[in-house]
Amino acid sequence: MSIPKPNYSPPFNITRASHSVLHVKDLAKSRAFYVDLIGFIVSDEDKDAIYLRGVAEASHHSLVLKRGSAPLAERVGLRCFSEEDLEKAKFHFDKAGLPARWAPQPHQGRTLQVNDVLGAPLEFCATMERKPRLVVSFDHHHGAVPQRIDHFQLLVPDVQRELEFYMALGFRLSEYIAPDGSEDPVFVFLQRKGNPHDIVFAPGAGPRLHHAAFSIPESTLFFTVCDLAATMGFADNIEFGPGRHGPGHALFVYMRDPDGHRIELFNTHYQCMDIDDEPVRWDASYAARRNWQLPARERWYSEASRFAGIEPREPSRKGNPMTLERYVAAN
Amino acid sequence: MSIPKPNYSPPFNITRASHSVLHVKDLAKSRAFYVDLIGFIVSDEDKDAIYLRGVAEASHHSLVLKRGSAPLAERVGLRCFSEEDLEKAKFHFDKAGLPARWAPQPHQGRTLQVNDVLGAPLEFCATMERKPRLVVSFDHHHGAVPQRIDHFQLLVPDVQRELEFYMALGFRLSEYIAPDGSEDPVFVFLQRKGNPHDIVFAPGAGPRLHHAAFSIPESTLFFTVCDLAATMGFADNIEFGPGRHGPGHALFVYMRDPDGHRIELFNTHYQCMDIDDEPVRWDASYAARRNWQLPARERWYSEASRFAGIEPREPSRKGNPMTLERYVAAN
Amino acid sequence: MSIPKPNYSPPFNITRASHSVLHVKDLAKSRAFYVDLIGFIVSDEDKDAIYLRGVAEASHHSLVLKRGSAPLAERVGLRCFSEEDLEKAKFHFDKAGLPARWAPQPHQGRTLQVNDVLGAPLEFCATMERKPRLVVSFDHHHGAVPQRIDHFQLLVPDVQRELEFYMALGFRLSEYIAPDGSEDPVFVFLQRKGNPHDIVFAPGAGPRLHHAAFSIPESTLFFTVCDLAATMGFADNIEFGPGRHGPGHALFVYMRDPDGHRIELFNTHYQCMDIDDEPVRWDASYAARRNWQLPARERWYSEASRFAGIEPREPSRKGNPMTLERYVAAN
Amino acid sequence: MSIPKPNYSPPFNITRASHSVLHVKDLAKSRAFYVDLIGFIVSDEDKDAIYLRGVAEASHHSLVLKRGSAPLAERVGLRCFSEEDLEKAKFHFDKAGLPARWAPQPHQGRTLQVNDVLGAPLEFCATMERKPRLVVSFDHHHGAVPQRIDHFQLLVPDVQRELEFYMALGFRLSEYIAPDGSEDPVFVFLQRKGNPHDIVFAPGAGPRLHHAAFSIPESTLFFTVCDLAATMGFADNIEFGPGRHGPGHALFVYMRDPDGHRIELFNTHYQCMDIDDEPVRWDASYAARRNWQLPARERWYSEASRFAGIEPREPSRKGNPMTLERYVAAN
Repeated sequence: MSIPKPNYSPPFNITRASHSVLHVKDLAKSRAFYVDLIGFIVSDEDKDAIYLRGVAEASHHSLVLKRGSAPLAERVGLRCFSEEDLEKAKFHFDKAGLPARWAPQPHQGRTLQVNDVLGAPLEFCATMERKPRLVVSFDHHHGAVPQRIDHFQLLVPDVQRELEFYMALGFRLSEYIAPDGSEDPVFVFLQRKGNPHDIVFAPGAGPRLHHAAFSIPESTLFFTVCDLAATMGFADNIEFGPGRHGPGHALFVYMRDPDGHRIELFNTHYQCMDIDDEPVRWDASYAARRNWQLPARERWYSEASRFAGIEPREPSRKGNPMTLERYVAAN
Repeated sequence: MSIPKPNYSPPFNITRASHSVLHVKDLAKSRAFYVDLIGFIVSDEDKDAIYLRGVAEASHHSLVLKRGSAPLAERVGLRCFSEEDLEKAKFHFDKAGLPARWAPQPHQGRTLQVNDVLGAPLEFCATMERKPRLVVSFDHHHGAVPQRIDHFQLLVPDVQRELEFYMALGFRLSEYIAPDGSEDPVFVFLQRKGNPHDIVFAPGAGPRLHHAAFSIPESTLFFTVCDLAATMGFADNIEFGPGRHGPGHALFVYMRDPDGHRIELFNTHYQCMDIDDEPVRWDASYAARRNWQLPARERWYSEASRFAGIEPREPSRKGNPMTLERYVAAN
Repeated sequence: MSIPKPNYSPPFNITRASHSVLHVKDLAKSRAFYVDLIGFIVSDEDKDAIYLRGVAEASHHSLVLKRGSAPLAERVGLRCFSEEDLEKAKFHFDKAGLPARWAPQPHQGRTLQVNDVLGAPLEFCATMERKPRLVVSFDHHHGAVPQRIDHFQLLVPDVQRELEFYMALGFRLSEYIAPDGSEDPVFVFLQRKGNPHDIVFAPGAGPRLHHAAFSIPESTLFFTVCDLAATMGFADNIEFGPGRHGPGHALFVYMRDPDGHRIELFNTHYQCMDIDDEPVRWDASYAARRNWQLPARERWYSEASRFAGIEPREPSRKGNPMTLERYVAAN
Repeated sequence: MSIPKPNYSPPFNITRASHSVLHVKDLAKSRAFYVDLIGFIVSDEDKDAIYLRGVAEASHHSLVLKRGSAPLAERVGLRCFSEEDLEKAKFHFDKAGLPARWAPQPHQGRTLQVNDVLGAPLEFCATMERKPRLVVSFDHHHGAVPQRIDHFQLLVPDVQRELEFYMALGFRLSEYIAPDGSEDPVFVFLQRKGNPHDIVFAPGAGPRLHHAAFSIPESTLFFTVCDLAATMGFADNIEFGPGRHGPGHALFVYMRDPDGHRIELFNTHYQCMDIDDEPVRWDASYAARRNWQLPARERWYSEASRFAGIEPREPSRKGNPMTLERYVAAN
């Protein structure tokens, strides 16, 4: 196993992480968390769903909360550049034995749904209903002032296979963690939009959605949102951080919503779009080493949202998630 | 005159603003400004030149200062994705009657130089020597902690012609200012990399380089760098700001270096890469209206760095730069 | 004329600047400015008055807005330590030929009113009704998140006389501006509470209230409040700054309320309470010199709120307020 | 046991926490920590000692590091207002059976040393050699940009006795923690200078110095100093935080120096100087409850610097330091 070559002529043009769809048990509680605490903008809502976007987003939603009986993830969304790319995508997936279906979604342009090579439910669209960009509508800014979706992280039983699948679709590997002395990536950060991540794969029972990440504009807002969380009774929803990442380099805080879905708030990423940007390798021992924050608790590594209807599979080799040491097969 | 259609199949792939090359009379004074005050990282220097990069850049340089007898701009650099794109670029420009020449440059991969349709000297490369990305090497952070180059602004006598030229090359128009009641853009913001600007054209005698802009990660750093400027004797080099932009929405400060070259420091931009991101129109009267900072002084509109060997031409119609009201021809 | 010796055994114990009382023509407009924009907490309000405090204040009010027919200042309030100090104050002022009267005020303990040596209307109290300190009630934080009152500035026709009056009451001179080559203070910063200012006197027709100043906790909030001001239609109320002070050293912004009353928002001050803290002298030429912000406009020097019923007197010698050069008499 | 009445006519006038004196084994290592990482200003140094101050301090030192064979605290310093207060202090302590001795100290005015009622070694001075206040000398700012000393915390075997001792000296109780349902303070915050703390007593074997605390001006600097610590190899010296305090309300981070001495960096405190500022009571169960940061590790409660020559005594009743539940005697 090893790192594939980048595919600079992908079968269709994926541009970025777009949105995720989550099932929540109590929309009012979720609204208190996402809107009153975090500061998402409500694009639309009714008794069955809330559509949220960040203040810098002109697309209708980057997070959809649907009323459901269990705290499940429904799917993650990726943006293609054009309608033509959607057609090419359908052709590509069908040919690859991954049946893709057109599935109209509210407030989105034509939408194609497919499960990836490990079963993770994806959907692709090229357009969405447009909403005002509220980046300088300061009277709408609140909480952490989330700007826009940045990336997803999934736990999967076979990181190498996802790596190959997404790199064949044109994703580039920005960073990866490998066991010391090995070139086998066990934690991979993949991107399309020119910063380090659009989708990240970490080892674990899956596919499950580990988190969706949203950017915030100022580091003081980490304190603002944590302080507000404590004031509003959400202190225990702060799971990990504030702290500083190794891979990606950003400041971060991870929070769990009232259903246990995890989001990451993080600040700005570096630019990563040149042909000479080679994947950055991190030794697992180094990546696990303490930056300055206390280490993540075990549950940060093991807990994630199940996808509706997808039974997680265990990795063939399990390891210590804190060190990633045994996830890779001997080869 | 009007706004051209985007060209989604450009003749070659330009990815981003890359670097600018400036002539300065005293390298030591320029070093004090760019390194000791602003916080640029020195990638290389000798008695004739200093090569600078931001802390988040892995490319060798985004700003080159050459010892010269006059404070001139030599050229601005754009990045193409691949070597093949450079070949396509040469073919394209030659065919268009704009002679392009290969011109080896230190620390850059193969480099193609050409003058744009109004004579602005450009160069294109796909690769540069790689240097360590110092984004988390906090012991190297200083001053405003410049992250990376973001865009250039040029004054030109015919904005419409530049708009057409660059949109034909695949640039997309993110925002523009037009006189009230008109659709004629007189101030245009063009991008390739997925945020609002890579190159900006404003009306005036030109082509001249108005400024190169570099991103900074925190708004407190506007105060840090202004305070440090005053302490170091550079208070008068602060020309405009800190303030808040209309188009682009960022916080900014403009500074003049010891030779009068202008740089902009600004914070984060929104994402702008979807096919349904339409150009945002600003009425000239609205864009000229006060945000909260005091208005720019006249010299911010009229002064810019001449390009070496390029005689500026006056616009056929001059106007009030504060309002942009007459720059557009009656048509 | 010169600087008096400090009086370490004052006739009674004044502890700090306490509050100011302003007349405003439209309470709703003032509320929009002070509460919806700046972020003051409403302690009480009715159809005739609004009582405001900062989030870190447990005293009932530091700013009282009364409905009035003209935009006047009613008086400024100082805190004494104990009821006994109020008694001593009455005795002291009466003996000094400045008649002091007990004047009950809503939400305040026993209150003594007196006009200072130049006629400025003061009031003293030792206690106020207590309200919850909201310093960590983050759900009540908004706008600039004003913490607490810090100081007042008055324009007066005879700075020297005020200096002598207040130093006899135990105020200490922290900083002062004097014309170059002179020891005659023309701009004086006086304190009781252990940081640089409680009351400041500058030369001009007066006594008039130049501004009341409130501290804010983070420099990013200067941008927050300016941005919010622009969004809410208050851009023109930003008069001067954000910028960096010479004397006092703080970052600041001055704003005019809907009636033209001026407030200053500034960040933290240094500690100034040791017996060996000598007054810091600034040459007028130096203090007038540009820090990094653009200089204040002339109106910042000349405009101020009249006190109700007090006719301003012109200084015997007028000068250029930008340089303070002639305000001092030859002697 | 209970809370004493404030003494508004103390035997002499203590104004504030002044300085601490620590023994360190390797001055070069300590210098790397305090100067190169934290950003203290060196007022003087030789082969045996380093004298440090914060950037907003005009007094010669607030932290003295002496070369020693063991990591001990030598003493903590308090400032009196005048020389006359020192004389009164000597008279007071001698009369109280606590022998006080004049002990000349470098760079300090006349200095009086005494051990408090539980043996904690104190010294008092009214003046110090003056140094430039570097609050706006931004070219000297580095790391966390420590402004000034704020307070000390000591672990002591009998908090009640210290409370009575210091309140008799004029200290006022700003906040305290008591077991639920009890009025017996087990964790007390005492102040003279008008903000919540000058000296704090917590239960434990002692007297030992738990930490000295220094203020920093911006919350972003918590990230700056933690990031720099990690870059410089001091990640493991970050013991607790960044986080938000209950009592005192500040943001904080605790760090251990190379000898294990603990310092706190925290941001601004509220004003606390009015006669109607009553002590704020916290239930132990509430104070121990999670704010938003992870709880302190046990060592934060139990580890502290021994004072040279002072054998710590155990509290007569020990308790769980995380809850403080049993420290108080049944009475």
